[in-house]
Amino acid sequence: MIKAGIVGGTGYTGVELLRILALHPQVQIHAVTSRADAGKRVDAMYPNLRGYVDAVFTEPGVETLKECEVVFFATPNGTAMRMARELLGQGVKLIDLAADFRLQDPAVWEQWYGEPHACPDLLAEAVYGLPEVNRERIRAARLIANPGCYPTATQLGFLPLVEAGLIRLDNLIADAKSGVSGAGRKAEIPMLMSEAGESFKAYGVAGHRHLPEIRQGLEHAAGQPVGLTFVPHLVPMIRGIHATLYAQLLSSEACDLQGLYEARYLGEPFVDVLPTGSHPDTRNVRASNRCQIAVHRPQGGDTVVVLAVEDNLVKGAAGQAVQNMNLMFGLEETLGLRAVGVYP
Amino acid sequence: MIKAGIVGGTGYTGVELLRILALHPQVQIHAVTSRADAGKRVDAMYPNLRGYVDAVFTEPGVETLKECEVVFFATPNGTAMRMARELLGQGVKLIDLAADFRLQDPAVWEQWYGEPHACPDLLAEAVYGLPEVNRERIRAARLIANPGCYPTATQLGFLPLVEAGLIRLDNLIADAKSGVSGAGRKAEIPMLMSEAGESFKAYGVAGHRHLPEIRQGLEHAAGQPVGLTFVPHLVPMIRGIHATLYAQLLSSEACDLQGLYEARYLGEPFVDVLPTGSHPDTRNVRASNRCQIAVHRPQGGDTVVVLAVEDNLVKGAAGQAVQNMNLMFGLEETLGLRAVGVYP
Amino acid sequence: MIKAGIVGGTGYTGVELLRILALHPQVQIHAVTSRADAGKRVDAMYPNLRGYVDAVFTEPGVETLKECEVVFFATPNGTAMRMARELLGQGVKLIDLAADFRLQDPAVWEQWYGEPHACPDLLAEAVYGLPEVNRERIRAARLIANPGCYPTATQLGFLPLVEAGLIRLDNLIADAKSGVSGAGRKAEIPMLMSEAGESFKAYGVAGHRHLPEIRQGLEHAAGQPVGLTFVPHLVPMIRGIHATLYAQLLSSEACDLQGLYEARYLGEPFVDVLPTGSHPDTRNVRASNRCQIAVHRPQGGDTVVVLAVEDNLVKGAAGQAVQNMNLMFGLEETLGLRAVGVYP
Amino acid sequence: MIKAGIVGGTGYTGVELLRILALHPQVQIHAVTSRADAGKRVDAMYPNLRGYVDAVFTEPGVETLKECEVVFFATPNGTAMRMARELLGQGVKLIDLAADFRLQDPAVWEQWYGEPHACPDLLAEAVYGLPEVNRERIRAARLIANPGCYPTATQLGFLPLVEAGLIRLDNLIADAKSGVSGAGRKAEIPMLMSEAGESFKAYGVAGHRHLPEIRQGLEHAAGQPVGLTFVPHLVPMIRGIHATLYAQLLSSEACDLQGLYEARYLGEPFVDVLPTGSHPDTRNVRASNRCQIAVHRPQGGDTVVVLAVEDNLVKGAAGQAVQNMNLMFGLEETLGLRAVGVYP
Repeated sequence: MIKAGIVGGTGYTGVELLRILALHPQVQIHAVTSRADAGKRVDAMYPNLRGYVDAVFTEPGVETLKECEVVFFATPNGTAMRMARELLGQGVKLIDLAADFRLQDPAVWEQWYGEPHACPDLLAEAVYGLPEVNRERIRAARLIANPGCYPTATQLGFLPLVEAGLIRLDNLIADAKSGVSGAGRKAEIPMLMSEAGESFKAYGVAGHRHLPEIRQGLEHAAGQPVGLTFVPHLVPMIRGIHATLYAQLLSSEACDLQGLYEARYLGEPFVDVLPTGSHPDTRNVRASNRCQIAVHRPQGGDTVVVLAVEDNLVKGAAGQAVQNMNLMFGLEETLGLRAVGVYP
Repeated sequence: MIKAGIVGGTGYTGVELLRILALHPQVQIHAVTSRADAGKRVDAMYPNLRGYVDAVFTEPGVETLKECEVVFFATPNGTAMRMARELLGQGVKLIDLAADFRLQDPAVWEQWYGEPHACPDLLAEAVYGLPEVNRERIRAARLIANPGCYPTATQLGFLPLVEAGLIRLDNLIADAKSGVSGAGRKAEIPMLMSEAGESFKAYGVAGHRHLPEIRQGLEHAAGQPVGLTFVPHLVPMIRGIHATLYAQLLSSEACDLQGLYEARYLGEPFVDVLPTGSHPDTRNVRASNRCQIAVHRPQGGDTVVVLAVEDNLVKGAAGQAVQNMNLMFGLEETLGLRAVGVYP
Repeated sequence: MIKAGIVGGTGYTGVELLRILALHPQVQIHAVTSRADAGKRVDAMYPNLRGYVDAVFTEPGVETLKECEVVFFATPNGTAMRMARELLGQGVKLIDLAADFRLQDPAVWEQWYGEPHACPDLLAEAVYGLPEVNRERIRAARLIANPGCYPTATQLGFLPLVEAGLIRLDNLIADAKSGVSGAGRKAEIPMLMSEAGESFKAYGVAGHRHLPEIRQGLEHAAGQPVGLTFVPHLVPMIRGIHATLYAQLLSSEACDLQGLYEARYLGEPFVDVLPTGSHPDTRNVRASNRCQIAVHRPQGGDTVVVLAVEDNLVKGAAGQAVQNMNLMFGLEETLGLRAVGVYP
Repeated sequence: MIKAGIVGGTGYTGVELLRILALHPQVQIHAVTSRADAGKRVDAMYPNLRGYVDAVFTEPGVETLKECEVVFFATPNGTAMRMARELLGQGVKLIDLAADFRLQDPAVWEQWYGEPHACPDLLAEAVYGLPEVNRERIRAARLIANPGCYPTATQLGFLPLVEAGLIRLDNLIADAKSGVSGAGRKAEIPMLMSEAGESFKAYGVAGHRHLPEIRQGLEHAAGQPVGLTFVPHLVPMIRGIHATLYAQLLSSEACDLQGLYEARYLGEPFVDVLPTGSHPDTRNVRASNRCQIAVHRPQGGDTVVVLAVEDNLVKGAAGQAVQNMNLMFGLEETLGLRAVGVYP
C-alpha cells in the first residue's frame, strides 16, 4: 500500500482526491492536512466520506508529510513550490494539482502569477502530467505538474491536428466552458448560486492563466510558436468542462480527421474519440476520468471544430493526478479509476 | 459470474443498473432488452457506458431471458407481472424495480394501479426487498419487489419510531421531495427543463401510489393500522430524495432518539445515522447506495422530525436491486456497491 | 413623486426594491446607501439597472436620509432599530425589511436575535406589514415591520383555517422550502452553487427565527396559543418559496374549504386562490408580487394540506414593502406592482 | 387600442407575448389560438396569467384573426406562410416569430427548411425585423420576419465591425450558447431536465438553420460574401443567449473598438454597450428586451472578441416582435417594453 498525503484536503480537488483514493486498492491515506480545520474529522466536514475515510485533518507540516510516499498538493497556487524541495529531499514524490510547476519558463510564471517563482530549478525537473503526451517521463518523475482543467481538454482536443501539421498555428481559438466547481471552494459572491445559477458569462477575456499553459503544450507539440485566443466561460452547473476548438486547415482537400483522432488516441484508456457526427455531453463523463472528443468539419469547409468534454475535477484534476500516481508507482494506469460516468 | 438480464434498459433505472452492474465483479450482463431500440448498441444511446458495456439492445423475449440467472425489470408498471410466471418457471430469479409485486393485497393493487393484477398468487410469494427489514427472506427469495424510491426513504426514517412504539400512529406526515429523474425518461412536457427547472411544486396531493406501499410497510412494523399523509414534491435537481417526516411522541418525557436510531441501524451497511443535530444533504449520497438519516426533536416538544436522504436511482432503485441480488446469490451484500457519494 | 431612500442597497432585497421602484410612477429614488460601496454607481454593480437607476451609493447617514419621505431598510437585522427613532423624528416613514420590528415582545425578540432590542417602545408602534391582515393600520402607520418571506406564505396559507376556527391549534406543521436568494448576498460557502446546487436539505430544524414570527401572527388570529413545528429547507433554485402546511380538522364532517379560502381572499389583489385540485408552482409567481394558494383534503380525511407559493424577494420582501408604501401614502395598492410572473 | 391576435399561443414565445402584451397600454388581446387547446382558458394552462389575460384558446381560423389589426405567429416553421396571403388581404399586419419569411432567397429557404416556400413572392415584401438595421422599413411594413434568437445577438454583435470594414470576412466564428427555452415547449427527451440539466453540449455543428439567416444579414451589411462558422450550444438554464464572437482585424494598428460600438448603438433603446472590460451576464437581461454587448481585443492582438447577451424569449423573440409592432403602428418604440432585468 502506498502511503499518500493530501495537502489542502478541504477544497474540491482535495475532497475529490479523497473520493477516488478511498477506494483505490493500493493506497492508504496517511495524512490529510488543512491549516484551518486541523483536529476536525474529515468526514465531519464531508459526510459523503463517512465510512470510507477515517482521518482527521492535521497541520500541513513536513514532519507528517515526509512519512508519505506521495504527497498531493490540492492547494492554492504558490504553496507547493515552498514545500517541494524539502519533501523531495526526504524521498517523497510530489504531485501538484495547482499551477506551481506547470510553466517551464520562470519569467512566464512570474508574469502570470504575480510573484517570483520560489524554486525555478525544480521547474526544469518537473514533468507536465499529461499522460497522453508524457507517459514515459511521468513514470520516471518524482515531481509532477498536474495539468489545469481547461488545458487538459484543450490540449487533448488540439493535439492530433497540431502534431499532424494540418492547421494554421497563428490563430487557434479555444472557446471553453466550465462548471462552477472549477472556481474552488472559496466564499466569494460571484460563485453564490444566486449569482452563478441560471446565467452564463465569459470571464478573463483579457487573459487567463491557462492561456500560457495551453500555448506551451501546443508549441511543444508544434515545434514553433502558436497564436491562441482562449475565452473561458462559466456554466450554471457544478461539474464539467466543454472545450469548443476552432482551427483553419492548411489545405482545402479532403482528409480523414476522424481516422486521425482515432489513431492518435488508440489504446488510450481515458481519451475516447466519439463516432463521426457526435456531440459530446459533459454529463457522460461526470465523475469519471475520461475525456470524450468529437471532430467536425462543418459543410466541408476549411474550419475544423473539435468538441472535447471532461469532468474538471477528475480528468481535469484529481483523477488525472491519480493516473499520474499510478504511472509513477508502476501500477496499472487505470487502477482505482475505472468508473462509469454518472448519467443522468 | 452471474448472468444477468435487464428488461427495459433504456429508462433511468435501467441505465443506472448498467452503470452499477458493469463494474460488479460477479456479474456478467447477458441481455439488455428494449422493444423500441432493439438492434442498437447500448453505448450508442448511453455514451457514458462506452468501454464498459459491450451489448446490443434485444427484444424482450423469454427465450433470451431464460438464459439468465437473474432478470431485473426496469419497466413501467404492469410489465413484470405478465412475464414473471414463465421466467420463474425457467428457474430465473426476478427483481422487479416497478410496482407490480409491492402491494400484498391484490384489491389494493387494483385500486391504485387501475387494472386487475395479472398473477395475484405470486404476490404472496414475492418478498418486499427492503433488506433492513426483510434480509433473511430476501436471501431465500426468487421474486423480489424492489421498493419504491419514496417508500425506501420514508420507511427507513419512520421504522425505528414505529417499531419502538413511541409515536401516535393515526397521523403521520411524510413531506417528501424528489429530483426529476424519479419521473423517468419519458417525453412529457412537465418534465422539460423549462418547466421543472428553477421551480418547486407539490404533486399528487390527492393520493400517490407510494402511499399504500409506505402504509403497508409501517403497518407491518406496527401490527396495527397507520394513518399517513404523504405529499410528494418535485425539486429542480436530477437525483436525490429528501423525506421530512413528522410524528407525535406518545409521551412528553425525555427519550434517547439518537440512540434509538443508531441501535436500529447498527451494522447496516447502507443506512447511516448522522450525528445529533445534523441536516442530511442529498448531494452527499449522490450516486451511492446510502440512506443518511438524522432525527430531531425541535425545542424538546412532542413532535419528532426525521430527515432521510437517498439517491432515488440508487438506494431508491437500482442500487437496492443489486443489494437484493447480492443477498439472493449469497454474495457479500456490499459487492459492487461501495461508492463514495459524488460531492460536489 | 415620493422621495424614497434605500439603506443597504447592495443586497438582494435592496436590488429588488430598486428593480420595482425604478418603474414605479410615483417614486423618485433619492438615496441608495451602502457603507462598503459608497461612491460607486449603482448600475456599475448591477448592470440590469443601467438606464433605469441613475444613482450613486452613498454613506448611510441621517443627513441624507432625512430628506426622504420614506426609507426602506434592506439591511441585516439590528440596523434599522438603531436609526429608526432619529428618522421618525424627522418625519420620515420607515419600512424595515429586516426583523427588527416584527416581534412585539422585546423579550422574545432578544431570545431569538441574541441582543436586547434597541428601542422596545417603538415595537408597540410598529405595524406588521401584512396587508391582508393589517391593511387599515398600515395606512396610518409611520413604521412598518415588513414580514419575513416564510412568514408571509405560511400565515397567508394558515389564516383562513385559523380564523374560521376549523383546526386544532396545538400541532400545526409548516414544511417550507426556499430558493437560495433567501440567504442573501453574502459570501458564504454553503451558498456557493457547488454546495447548494443539485442538492436539497433542511436547515434550522432546532429553531428558526421565523418560527416566533409566524406563531405571533397565528396566535393573534386565533386569540389563543398555537403549537407550530416549522422546518425550512433549501431548494436548488434562486427565487421562490413553497410552504406545505398541515393541520388537523376539528370535525370530520364535510366542509367547503375551497369556498372558505376564496371568500377570505376575495378582492385581495395579491393573493390568488387557485381552483380545486391545483398544485401551485413557484415559477408562476416569479418576479411578481403574488401568493398563489391551493387547499387540499387528501382522501377526505382529517388532515388539511395547504400549498402556498410566492417569490421570496417580491411578495416575501421588496414587493410587499412597496405594497405597504402604497398604502401608507394613499396610493392605489397595486401601483408599480402589476407584473405577470416570469414563466418559463 | 390595437386588436392583436396570437396564433400558437401555447408555446414559449406565445406565452411570452401574452406576458408582455397583457400589460401593454395600447394593445387588446383579441384572439389566442391553439388547435390542441381550443376551448380551454389561457390562464388555466398558464396560471402566471391569472388576472391579466381573460381569454380562451380558439381555433386558428381566418374568420377570427381577420378581426385583428395585427397577428403574431408564434407557431412552428411553415405555418405563417400558409395563412399570410389571406390575412394580409384582409388588411391585417403580420409578425412571424418563426422562420418563414427570414430568408430572402426561396431556394436557400427550401434548402434549410426542407420544403418549397409556400409564397415566395411575399418573401420579397417581408421586412426583416431587426430595428437596429431596418427601423424605417419596419415602420412601413405589413409583414415582418421577426429575427431568430441566435441571429439577433450574433448580428448585433458583429455589425459594427462589419459595417466599419475592420475585419476579415472569410472566417467569422460565432460560438453561441442558449438556454433550453430556445428549444420550445415540445415533449422531447433531450430537453427533459434529467438530460439537459447539469450538462453542457454543442449541437447542430454540421449546420444550423440560423447560419444562413446570420450570413444573409452580415452579407447585406458587408456588401460581399461572408464566411461564417456557427456553433450553437445548450446551457443548463432556462432563459438567455450568450454569443461569443471572434473576428480577425485587417490591421494590427490600434483602433477604438469601444468607441465604434458606442457610436453604432448610440440612442438605441434596447442595445446597451457595456463599459470597456466588461463581461455581460445573461442574468442581467433576463425577462427584458435588451441586448448587452462588450467588445474585447485580448492582449492587443489581431483577434476581436465580442460578447453579446440577450433573453432569447424577449429581445430574441417576443419582445422584439412587440418592438416591431410598436414601430409598425407608430407608437413609441419602447411602449410596454420598459423592464429591468430580473436579477438575481
